Amino acid sequence: MSVTNIKAHSELTHSRKPGHSMPGELFGRHDVFETDVDVFFHKHWILVGVTADVPEPGDVSTVDIGKASILILRDDDDNIRTYRNVCRHRGARLKDAGKSTVGMLVCPYHQWTYELDGSLKHTTHMGIDFDRSCRGLIPVKTRIVGTHIFVCLSGDAPADIDILEETMDPRFAPYDLTRTKIAHEAEIIENGNWKLVIENNRECYHCGATHPELTASFLPEDFGFCPQGLSEESQRELDAYHARNAANVSSWEKDGLICNAFERLDPDAATSFRTQRLVIAGNGESQTMDTRVASKKLFGELQRRDLGDVHMWTHNSWTHVMSDHAVISYIIPLAPDKTLVRTKWLVHQDAVEGVDYDLKTLTEVWAATNSQDASLVAINYRGTQDPAYEPGPFSPFTETYVELFAQWYTARLTAHGI
Amino acid sequence: MSVTNIKAHSELTHSRKPGHSMPGELFGRHDVFETDVDVFFHKHWILVGVTADVPEPGDVSTVDIGKASILILRDDDDNIRTYRNVCRHRGARLKDAGKSTVGMLVCPYHQWTYELDGSLKHTTHMGIDFDRSCRGLIPVKTRIVGTHIFVCLSGDAPADIDILEETMDPRFAPYDLTRTKIAHEAEIIENGNWKLVIENNRECYHCGATHPELTASFLPEDFGFCPQGLSEESQRELDAYHARNAANVSSWEKDGLICNAFERLDPDAATSFRTQRLVIAGNGESQTMDTRVASKKLFGELQRRDLGDVHMWTHNSWTHVMSDHAVISYIIPLAPDKTLVRTKWLVHQDAVEGVDYDLKTLTEVWAATNSQDASLVAINYRGTQDPAYEPGPFSPFTETYVELFAQWYTARLTAHGI
Amino acid sequence: MSVTNIKAHSELTHSRKPGHSMPGELFGRHDVFETDVDVFFHKHWILVGVTADVPEPGDVSTVDIGKASILILRDDDDNIRTYRNVCRHRGARLKDAGKSTVGMLVCPYHQWTYELDGSLKHTTHMGIDFDRSCRGLIPVKTRIVGTHIFVCLSGDAPADIDILEETMDPRFAPYDLTRTKIAHEAEIIENGNWKLVIENNRECYHCGATHPELTASFLPEDFGFCPQGLSEESQRELDAYHARNAANVSSWEKDGLICNAFERLDPDAATSFRTQRLVIAGNGESQTMDTRVASKKLFGELQRRDLGDVHMWTHNSWTHVMSDHAVISYIIPLAPDKTLVRTKWLVHQDAVEGVDYDLKTLTEVWAATNSQDASLVAINYRGTQDPAYEPGPFSPFTETYVELFAQWYTARLTAHGI
Repeated sequence: MSVTNIKAHSELTHSRKPGHSMPGELFGRHDVFETDVDVFFHKHWILVGVTADVPEPGDVSTVDIGKASILILRDDDDNIRTYRNVCRHRGARLKDAGKSTVGMLVCPYHQWTYELDGSLKHTTHMGIDFDRSCRGLIPVKTRIVGTHIFVCLSGDAPADIDILEETMDPRFAPYDLTRTKIAHEAEIIENGNWKLVIENNRECYHCGATHPELTASFLPEDFGFCPQGLSEESQRELDAYHARNAANVSSWEKDGLICNAFERLDPDAATSFRTQRLVIAGNGESQTMDTRVASKKLFGELQRRDLGDVHMWTHNSWTHVMSDHAVISYIIPLAPDKTLVRTKWLVHQDAVEGVDYDLKTLTEVWAATNSQDASLVAINYRGTQDPAYEPGPFSPFTETYVELFAQWYTARLTAHGI
Repeated sequence: MSVTNIKAHSELTHSRKPGHSMPGELFGRHDVFETDVDVFFHKHWILVGVTADVPEPGDVSTVDIGKASILILRDDDDNIRTYRNVCRHRGARLKDAGKSTVGMLVCPYHQWTYELDGSLKHTTHMGIDFDRSCRGLIPVKTRIVGTHIFVCLSGDAPADIDILEETMDPRFAPYDLTRTKIAHEAEIIENGNWKLVIENNRECYHCGATHPELTASFLPEDFGFCPQGLSEESQRELDAYHARNAANVSSWEKDGLICNAFERLDPDAATSFRTQRLVIAGNGESQTMDTRVASKKLFGELQRRDLGDVHMWTHNSWTHVMSDHAVISYIIPLAPDKTLVRTKWLVHQDAVEGVDYDLKTLTEVWAATNSQDASLVAINYRGTQDPAYEPGPFSPFTETYVELFAQWYTARLTAHGI
Repeated sequence: MSVTNIKAHSELTHSRKPGHSMPGELFGRHDVFETDVDVFFHKHWILVGVTADVPEPGDVSTVDIGKASILILRDDDDNIRTYRNVCRHRGARLKDAGKSTVGMLVCPYHQWTYELDGSLKHTTHMGIDFDRSCRGLIPVKTRIVGTHIFVCLSGDAPADIDILEETMDPRFAPYDLTRTKIAHEAEIIENGNWKLVIENNRECYHCGATHPELTASFLPEDFGFCPQGLSEESQRELDAYHARNAANVSSWEKDGLICNAFERLDPDAATSFRTQRLVIAGNGESQTMDTRVASKKLFGELQRRDLGDVHMWTHNSWTHVMSDHAVISYIIPLAPDKTLVRTKWLVHQDAVEGVDYDLKTLTEVWAATNSQDASLVAINYRGTQDPAYEPGPFSPFTETYVELFAQWYTARLTAHGI
């Protein structure tokens, strides 16, 4: 392939036929990946953690986002603050990825010392005229929604994070998600491009044959189905699905709970997201194998177990909040063919493992689901890199959110001059 | 190295001095590698397997060829069929590399289901108007010669595969190679460019000091020697070599066996190959340590053990067929400095391990030889990437096939507009 | 990042603000790395070994320098010779990295055989007219200073190696360093750019908090300190430091030992280096935990133990020579983010382990120090690759040699037309 043959990124996005999967080069090319990271992970709001990552003042959670790294910390006034993890001297990382507790932030290289408010407090050997005031840590734009910590690494952060916040705050409010703890977290490095990870998450066309654990509690119909030519039995099941949904919504709304779907997935939305209160199948309580709560200690002051699943999608995350626990996953692209998926299981901060909840029961559904999806993403990625791959047609019934993601992807690149 | 300094691929090939090894950049550069894969492994016929890879209807052998992957399968009518291993929906791999048995080919992602004839049989959620007829698996051009499965991934497959077929079919015929089984297979990833692997295979100048197992049965003189200034003893050995060859050829021809060398290695040949019936040294039967057959069950209905070695070279393979077993190796380039060598040992399909043959006796010669060659290719590769490397002179007696390969390489690139 | 956005190497070096660290792309970019290797490791003199690497005639030490490789050998006349490790036939490596002993150098591929003087002695199958005289091994420019083996891979070797030799020879002479043996050697692959490894080595601003073992014997003041606003106690310590230095120098000079600092670090120096006889802290004898000699058998015919530390820096090495042992480290860049640091501990050739010296005592200071520095280089490298990194100010007191290195780096690139 000579230099002159290489298609521009925009040529690739615009060559996509509506209703069809993306060209393979959008997944595999290094230059496309670099642009993706810059546009979608530096210039948009991304989910990078939860408030329970830093439960106490002085707690620090260091999150690497590709070559970037941020420090999430709780200061002495209980405010969450975020900084770029780069010393203002010669650039050393202040903290390795992971969690720790500090009084001040001391660079391991030459002991430049920063307060938790980011100001540079102390340096040796810099001379008496050295001006520390302009050498504080670089703050990161941050917005906390429920327990979710969103950041934007760019100075020019999209303003429509307000819409996400206004939409989600009242939906999360009954759960009091800042009074939670992390019962478990897990990481998978999936062998595929980040867009394939998101595409995989945006449809449940694959769920029936792949996710026996998830589909115990999940209704694939929530994300589309083909209504044509249904058998009598299928039609009966569909009617039951609709009836059950209607009954649940009616009951929840009586309790003042917001249920309706809200989508902001259109090309104009910088901060795209979707939310809805979904019905849990079976016993109707939680995303577990027996569809009952995994934690007896419900969130906040909740009394009712069957609150369904408040789901939220953003372009780098998926969240499910039930009455007893929440599962929050976010992705960080590592390479064209490597994507980190980090998942946190939250329970009430006073819930006690072995008493209120059993860890295996709590985690087994999404641990299995994420692992199954990782396999699918890997075979999808490898296939799209085959010279024989041609983009194929999406199902008009079950893959509409994949199509919307592809449209949004193109539009956001265009909005950033790509 | 600035962009403007980079020599064109053709400039590199044409800078090679006749009779000298290739410039190091032809082995090490990524862009050269990409072009090589495209020209020599997608646009030429390559060996990718044997009929015994899929002995029964429904058997599938999946072969990765760099980023490409193909499905070799035997259909219900006992025909061997090959397809690109890419689902026509969103591109997922239908099968991981390796072997399996299926009734139909079901994509693991969304269960699109293909018949063994490649047609798309079944999809859910695509709507009643969805036209499956244009979404069958993409077939691969395939030619079976003896037991060898050759494919060409390009639509524009070179027609001169006919010559290889016409030449080899009568030579392989007495061995009935479709009635064989794979007694053993092995893979080595050699740490060198694919062209160095082939160069290594095209001369036996290195055999004497490197391959004690192979030279038990192999006559290095078959691939050239310097006739000048021979000692009296060497001259006697050479006379004995010629006499033995003549006696063997005469005996074989009496039995109607084709013996003569046939070479199609010239620059105009797209499908280059060489064949000859070579004399086996020692007891004259087979490429084993004691030069006797490794399998008492001879191929087909053969009665005679001393049939020599019907060898065949192509630009990605080497084959040795003896009366009792065949050894077939082919290469797949993985990276500029990584080449997969896959070797299969075939015996009569009714031969029984432990009764008719001993696996160690059968495999030890070429297992050792391939491993020894891997070491040589690795030190050769690393040396050619040293800034101090300058192409050196080939032996005019023992490296003529290396020179012919280099000429062919240049010519084929030119033929493809490189 | 599009092709047109990529800054030229010279633009990067010249964009550096005086007194500030380098832009991150100078550490992370592959093209910058390739140029660095060419300019600083092929066209300048680099340290690659010591005479004790090849103690006996026929001994060979093979040193890989990135893609290049050299053979250091001792011939039958006890001369040290160096050659490029590339066979003149098809380029195979003659020797793998490491040490061996030979009578002649025989290529493992086709047995081309070279004398220890590099001449091609023997080839088979090349024909009677083949001219071996122009196919000898390619010699490498070599200069031995004390025990240090410097080479320049370029034909156009900088002449100012003479200054280094003239300066160091009389300083090393009392130690008789050719009569030494390697008591231990160690390798670390540091996860950072080679320039960060050197920057780390050029200042002791980081020593106090990082190197408890080294600072037992090392005086960080030797490499700068901020004299402003010292506490009374600090001022007393500083006065004591100066007094101790003066007393030592006076005593050494009485014994005819050269003590003064000599620096050749300016932009015009191709072969940059620094040397000085430094005072050892504590008991004043050697860089050990108890600051006493590690080997009872002093170098050469030395009687006095408190000879301080004759240090020498070059752009790829650091050396400390005490009365009883020497520690010599040199670096080889492997990738933008990988640098090999190889360290050799020398003692008198007649010193006996367990009798004259204990290996742990001998090696623990620099084994720990190198390991600690590797951690710092790694966090420094990762931070400089963060999009949030901005070059920060050097200490005008403790990082002057880092600044001089940065200036020299720029100047040498300019001198080579970059």
